[in-house]
Amino acid sequence: MEPLDRIFRARSIAIIGASNDEKKRGYQAINTLLEDRYEGRIYPVNPNEERILGIPCYKDIGDIGEPVDIVLIATPSRTVPPIIKACGRARVGGVVIIAGGFGEVGEEGRKAEAEIVNLAKQGGLRIVGPNTSGIISLHNKMNLVGIRDVPKGNIAMLTQSGNIALHLITEARLRSQEGFSFYVGVGNEADLRFHEYLEYFKNDPQTRAIVLYVEGLREGRKFLQEAYKTSPEKPIICLKSGRSKTGKRSAGSHTGALAGISEVARTAFERAGIVTIENLDELFPAAESLAILPPLRNNRVAILADGGGHATIAADLLSDLGVEIPELNNSTLANLKRVLPPNASIGNPIDLAGSTDANPGLFADCAEILLHDKNIGGLLIVGLFGGYGIRFSEKLKFIEEDTSHRMGKILKKAQKPIIVHSLYSLAASHSLELLRYYRIPVYESTDIACKCIGVLAQYGNYLRMYKQKTNFVFHWENHAKPEGRAILEKAKHEKRRSLLEHEAGELLRLHGAPVLEGELATTEDEAVAAAKKFGQAVALKVVSPDILHKSDVGGVKLNLRTKKEITDAFKAIITSAKKKKRDATILGCLVSPMVKKGLEVIIGTKIDDQFGPVIMFGLGGILVEIVKDVSFRVLPIRRAAARKMIMEIKAAPLLDGVRGEPPVDKEAIVSLLMTISGLIESYPEIHELDLNPVMVRESGITIVDARIILHENHRHFKTEG
Amino acid sequence: MEPLDRIFRARSIAIIGASNDEKKRGYQAINTLLEDRYEGRIYPVNPNEERILGIPCYKDIGDIGEPVDIVLIATPSRTVPPIIKACGRARVGGVVIIAGGFGEVGEEGRKAEAEIVNLAKQGGLRIVGPNTSGIISLHNKMNLVGIRDVPKGNIAMLTQSGNIALHLITEARLRSQEGFSFYVGVGNEADLRFHEYLEYFKNDPQTRAIVLYVEGLREGRKFLQEAYKTSPEKPIICLKSGRSKTGKRSAGSHTGALAGISEVARTAFERAGIVTIENLDELFPAAESLAILPPLRNNRVAILADGGGHATIAADLLSDLGVEIPELNNSTLANLKRVLPPNASIGNPIDLAGSTDANPGLFADCAEILLHDKNIGGLLIVGLFGGYGIRFSEKLKFIEEDTSHRMGKILKKAQKPIIVHSLYSLAASHSLELLRYYRIPVYESTDIACKCIGVLAQYGNYLRMYKQKTNFVFHWENHAKPEGRAILEKAKHEKRRSLLEHEAGELLRLHGAPVLEGELATTEDEAVAAAKKFGQAVALKVVSPDILHKSDVGGVKLNLRTKKEITDAFKAIITSAKKKKRDATILGCLVSPMVKKGLEVIIGTKIDDQFGPVIMFGLGGILVEIVKDVSFRVLPIRRAAARKMIMEIKAAPLLDGVRGEPPVDKEAIVSLLMTISGLIESYPEIHELDLNPVMVRESGITIVDARIILHENHRHFKTEG
Repeated sequence: MEPLDRIFRARSIAIIGASNDEKKRGYQAINTLLEDRYEGRIYPVNPNEERILGIPCYKDIGDIGEPVDIVLIATPSRTVPPIIKACGRARVGGVVIIAGGFGEVGEEGRKAEAEIVNLAKQGGLRIVGPNTSGIISLHNKMNLVGIRDVPKGNIAMLTQSGNIALHLITEARLRSQEGFSFYVGVGNEADLRFHEYLEYFKNDPQTRAIVLYVEGLREGRKFLQEAYKTSPEKPIICLKSGRSKTGKRSAGSHTGALAGISEVARTAFERAGIVTIENLDELFPAAESLAILPPLRNNRVAILADGGGHATIAADLLSDLGVEIPELNNSTLANLKRVLPPNASIGNPIDLAGSTDANPGLFADCAEILLHDKNIGGLLIVGLFGGYGIRFSEKLKFIEEDTSHRMGKILKKAQKPIIVHSLYSLAASHSLELLRYYRIPVYESTDIACKCIGVLAQYGNYLRMYKQKTNFVFHWENHAKPEGRAILEKAKHEKRRSLLEHEAGELLRLHGAPVLEGELATTEDEAVAAAKKFGQAVALKVVSPDILHKSDVGGVKLNLRTKKEITDAFKAIITSAKKKKRDATILGCLVSPMVKKGLEVIIGTKIDDQFGPVIMFGLGGILVEIVKDVSFRVLPIRRAAARKMIMEIKAAPLLDGVRGEPPVDKEAIVSLLMTISGLIESYPEIHELDLNPVMVRESGITIVDARIILHENHRHFKTEG
Repeated sequence: MEPLDRIFRARSIAIIGASNDEKKRGYQAINTLLEDRYEGRIYPVNPNEERILGIPCYKDIGDIGEPVDIVLIATPSRTVPPIIKACGRARVGGVVIIAGGFGEVGEEGRKAEAEIVNLAKQGGLRIVGPNTSGIISLHNKMNLVGIRDVPKGNIAMLTQSGNIALHLITEARLRSQEGFSFYVGVGNEADLRFHEYLEYFKNDPQTRAIVLYVEGLREGRKFLQEAYKTSPEKPIICLKSGRSKTGKRSAGSHTGALAGISEVARTAFERAGIVTIENLDELFPAAESLAILPPLRNNRVAILADGGGHATIAADLLSDLGVEIPELNNSTLANLKRVLPPNASIGNPIDLAGSTDANPGLFADCAEILLHDKNIGGLLIVGLFGGYGIRFSEKLKFIEEDTSHRMGKILKKAQKPIIVHSLYSLAASHSLELLRYYRIPVYESTDIACKCIGVLAQYGNYLRMYKQKTNFVFHWENHAKPEGRAILEKAKHEKRRSLLEHEAGELLRLHGAPVLEGELATTEDEAVAAAKKFGQAVALKVVSPDILHKSDVGGVKLNLRTKKEITDAFKAIITSAKKKKRDATILGCLVSPMVKKGLEVIIGTKIDDQFGPVIMFGLGGILVEIVKDVSFRVLPIRRAAARKMIMEIKAAPLLDGVRGEPPVDKEAIVSLLMTISGLIESYPEIHELDLNPVMVRESGITIVDARIILHENHRHFKTEG
C-alpha cells in the first residue's frame, strides 16, 4: 500500500486520547466511526480506561500488537513528540494531529513543528496537520472530523479552515445532489502538503473534481507543478483568501502560512488550469458544476430567459467572465420561430417574455434547438422555471416535470452543459429535483448560475490549450556554459553579490542576448582607444563592484565624441564616484557606442516568496515606475506566454505603433524573454536580473544596461522539479 | 391630492379590459384587489360584460359617473390612445399601461409612445409605463401586478423588470422580516420617470429605503438631482445592468431605454449618495440592512468569528470595500481577555476558535464589549451562530436564544449596526428568528453579510460628507459675460460650429483662465511685429475655421527666433495648409511665445448621453491616449471633487514630483477645472472643450492650446434644473 493509501484508505485506526467523556474529541471520533459503521478496526488508546463505547482500550500504541494504518492524536501539543516516536516504533502509516500550538504561534511553535516532522521522518510515517480539523474518507466510511451527514459524492475537498469545510458541506446538503469523496483539513502543512494531496486525488477513481480553500502555500511551485499535471484530468477549483493586510493577519494567526493572492499567483494559477474563485458563495457551485457536467467545447453560450431583467444581468455577467453570447444563425432562428409566439425576443439572450406562463414546456423546445446548434457550447436558463406550478397554475407543475425529464435527455444527447437559475430553487419543487437528478445544477442566484457556466467555459478553454503551457518545471543548468559558470565563480570567489556590468553583459551575450557592445577601460587612454574602435559617439559608465546605481554617483556620461570629451568625462566620472562613495573599488569605465533610439522596455526577474523565479515586462520610464503597468509570469515560460505577457500591459498599443510610429519588433522582445527564461534556468545562482533600459526598434533590440544580482551567500534557488 | 397621490393612494380604480376569463390580466387584477380587501372602489370596464366577480361592469370609463383616481389599462397597445382620451375626459388621475409595443420596438413604437404622452398631457393625467408589470401600494392594499404574498414593509421598489421585482419579493419572503411599501414597474418611462417616483418616495412616511433596478435612464441628470435630495433622508440602493454589449442589446429590447453603466455614472451615483450594487444577490440584503439599521458613525468595524476561514474571508472582503478593521485599543482588549479563554485570538478579527462550542453566549459578551468601544462603528459576526444547538448539543440552543435577546438589547443601546452571517441561516433556528425580530439581519452568505456592513459604512460616510458635494444643478448663464456672448454670437452668425483658436483663448481669458498669449497675424509682417512684442522665441499656428487639426496640415512651427525664421515659417504654413486643405478659408497665423516647460495635462468637457456635460482630466501624451488614464466628473463640480479627480488618475504621483522633480501646482489645476466648470455653466452652447496641452509648473499653469466646439445647429444643452 502507498503511504497515502494507508492514510486515506486505512484498515485500522488508533485514537490516542480516546475518552469516555462525551464532550471530548477522543469520544466523538470513536462514536462517529461506530455510527458510520467504519469497516476497519478501531483501537482506543488511553492508559486510564478499560473500554470506550464498548471497545477494549489499550494503554499504549505499542500494546496493540496488530498493524495500525492511521493514528488520530487528540491530545495536547506537548504530548505529541513522544507519541510520534511510539507510532514510529509501531510502524504506523500516518498520524492526524488535531492540536494547535505549532507553527502558527511563533518561533517556539515553529521549533516544535520541526521536531515532530523530524521524528515522523525517522519513524517512517506521514503527518496530516498539525492544527487540523482532521480528515474524512467518505467511500471508506472513515470520518475523523465529527461533522455529521456529509453527503457522499465525487468532490475531494482540501481546506485550511474547518469552518469553510462545514460551509461547503452545508451547502452541498442544502442545494445539491453532489457530495464529497474526501475531506482533508491540511492545517499547518508541516509534513504532507497541498501538492501531495492533489497528486493522491488525481489518481483516485472516486474523485471527479478537487476543491481547495487556501490561505497560504508552503511550496507554491510544487503546487503549480502538481496542479498542471492534475487539471487536464480533473478540474481544480480554488478560493485563495488572505489577500488584504488584515486578512493576512487573520490567516497567519490560524494556519502559520504565508498568505496572499498576487498578480503572479493569478496568472500562474490560470496557466496551471486552476479555476480561481473570488467569492465563497461561488466555491461549491463551481466545484459541483465542474464535477458533474462536461466542460464547454467552445466558449459560446445561449441564454434562455423568461424575463428581460434576468437576461440582461446574465448577459452582463457572462461578458465580464469572457464568455461569448453569439448571435444565432439563421437555421436556429428559424427553428425557434417555429416553436415560439411572435412576442418572444429571439436574439441571444432569448427572452420568452411571458409565453412560458401558459406553457413552460417551451424551455425544453428551445433547449433542444439551441443545443443542436454546433455554434452553441452550452445553455444557461434564467428565471422562474420550477415555479410555474407555484406562481401561475398548479396544473403547470406537471408540464414542468415533463420538461425536466426532456431536459435530462437533451443534456445526455447533446453532451453540452445546461445550468438553470430558478427563483424557486429553494421551494420544494419536484421539477427542480428532477433536474438535479439528471445532473443539471439549479441555483437560486443568477450571479452564481452565470459563474458556473463561466467556469465550464474557462475549463473547456484550458483543455484545448494546456499543452501550450509550461509545466513549471526547471531543468536546472540545462544550457549553462563553462564560460558563464566561470563568470559566476569569479564573483563568488571575490565574495560579490552582483556581477559587474561588463560581466553581466558577457553572460547575456554568451546566451545570445543582444547586449550593447562595451569595453572596460581602466584608463583615459583605453577609453579613447575603445571609442575609436566603435567609430561613433560613445557613453561612459563607471564600473565598480560597490556601485549599483551609477547615475546617483555621477557615474554616467553620454554622447561623447572628441578625444577631449572622452578624457574629461573619464576623469569627471572617477572623481565624482570616488567623492560620493569613498570606499568603493573603482575598476574604470565601460565604454559603449551610443544606442540607436527606439522604444524603451524593461525586463526583470526576481524570486517570488511563494513561487520562486518570476519574470517581469513593462515599458520604460513612468509607465513602470509610476503607473505600475507591468506583467508577470512564473518562470520558465514558453513563447505563447511571452507573447501574451507583452500584450497584457495597458500600454501595449505603443508596441504596435501609434501616431505614425512604426510597430516595434515584438518577436525580438519575445525571443529576449525566452533567452532570459533560459538563463535563469541555467544559472540557479541568479537572484535578480534587471535589463533597464532595453531599446527595441522596428527591427531588432538592444540591451543597454544590465544588472545581475546573485543569491545571498551564493545559495541556489532550486526546487526538486 | 397631489397627482402621484392619486396614483399611489388611489381611492378608486377602474380596470379597462376587465374580464371573466381567469387567464386574463383583467380578471386577475380585480381578483387580487378583492382578495387583498382593497379599501377603495373598483370599477370593471368592459362593454360585453354585466358583472365581473360580482361587481357591476361599465361599458365605458365615461359611464362611471364617480371620480376615478387610477385606471389599469389591460388591453392591447393599439386600443390605448382612444382610452387615454376617454380617461382625460373623465378626469382620471393616472393610468397604468401594461401593453408593450411602444418605444421598445423601434421607430413606429416610439411614435405611438409620443402620441399617448401627448394625449395624457392634454387630458391632465399621468402615465405609469407603458410596458410595465404594474404598481403595488402595500399600505393601501392596492396590488395591480398580481404577484401574491408581497410582504409589507418599508422598502420602496422601482424596477425595469417584473422578474427582478419577483426576485426581490421572493427573497424578502424567504430571508427577511422586512418588506415593501411600494412597487413600481417603471416600464418605458414614457411619462412618469425614475426621478419623479424618487421624489414621491422621499416624502412618503411609510418608506425608509428605496431600491432600484435600472437598465437605462431617460433623464439621467434629473435623476441625479433628485437622488442628491433624497439620499440624505433615505438611502437609495441601485443595481444598474446593461453594461455589456450583449446586455445592452437585451435591455434595449425590453425597456426601450439607453442602457449602460459607465465610469461617469459610477462617480456620479456616488456623489448623489446612491449605493451602487454590482450583484443581484446583494441587492435586497443591502436594501434591507439600510432600511432597518443605523448607518455606521465611523468607517470602522469589528469582526467576530468562531473560525479562522470566515474571519480571513471577511477581512479580505471588507478591505476591498474600503472598510477599516482597526486594531483594538488596550481597554477593549483587556475586557475581551477577561471574558475569553486563552486560546481565542484577540485581534481584529476576533477568532473565538472553538471556545463558543461550549458557550455561544460569548458572542453577546464580546458584542457588548466591542460596541461599547467608541472606535468601533459596527459589528460583523461570521460563522455558526444559530447552529450551535444543531451542530453540538441541543441544550446550547437555549443559550443561543438568550444570546439573541441580549444582542437585540445591545443593538438598541449602542445604536450601532450588527450583521450576522450564519451557516445555519436557512435552518429554522429560533435564535436566528429572534435576531431578525430585533432587526439584526442574518445572511447565509459571508460575502453578502460583508457587503451589507460595507454599505452601512458607505452610507454613513456619505452622510458625513454630502454637503460638500454638488447637487448636479446648473445655473445657466450665471456668469456669462457680454464679450463672451459676442464671441459665440459671431460664430453662430458665421455658421461655424467651432471657435477659432484665438476666440477660444479670448473666451477662456475673459473668465480668468491662464491662456498662453497669442496674436492673430494675417501677414508675415504682422507675425514679425507680434513676435517682437513678446521679445522671445515664438510658435506659429494656422488659424482657419475649416482646420481643426493643425499639425495634420503642417500648420504648426515652433521655436522661431529671427525675422527670417518667422517669415519663412509663416509662408510655409500658409502654403502647406492651402495645399493640404484646398477649400479652407485661412485667416492667418496665431503668434504665441514659446511656453515654459512643465508637466503636460489635458482637460476636456463633452456631453454624456445620459447625464449631459461632463469634465475629464488626464496627463498629456500616451497616458491619456494609450493607457486611458483619465478621470471624469459630471458637471458642475466643486473644489473637493476637482481635487479628488486629479488624484484619481494612476499617474497622480507625477503631480507630486518624482525622480527629484518638484511637485506641480495642483491648486492651479483645481482652479482651472473650476473655471471650466463655470464656463460650461455660463455658455450652454458649448458642446465640447479641449485644452490640450495645459502646461503646469511648480508654480502656475498655462493653457497652450484650446479648442471649443458648439452644439449642432447651435442648440443649447439645458436641463430644467
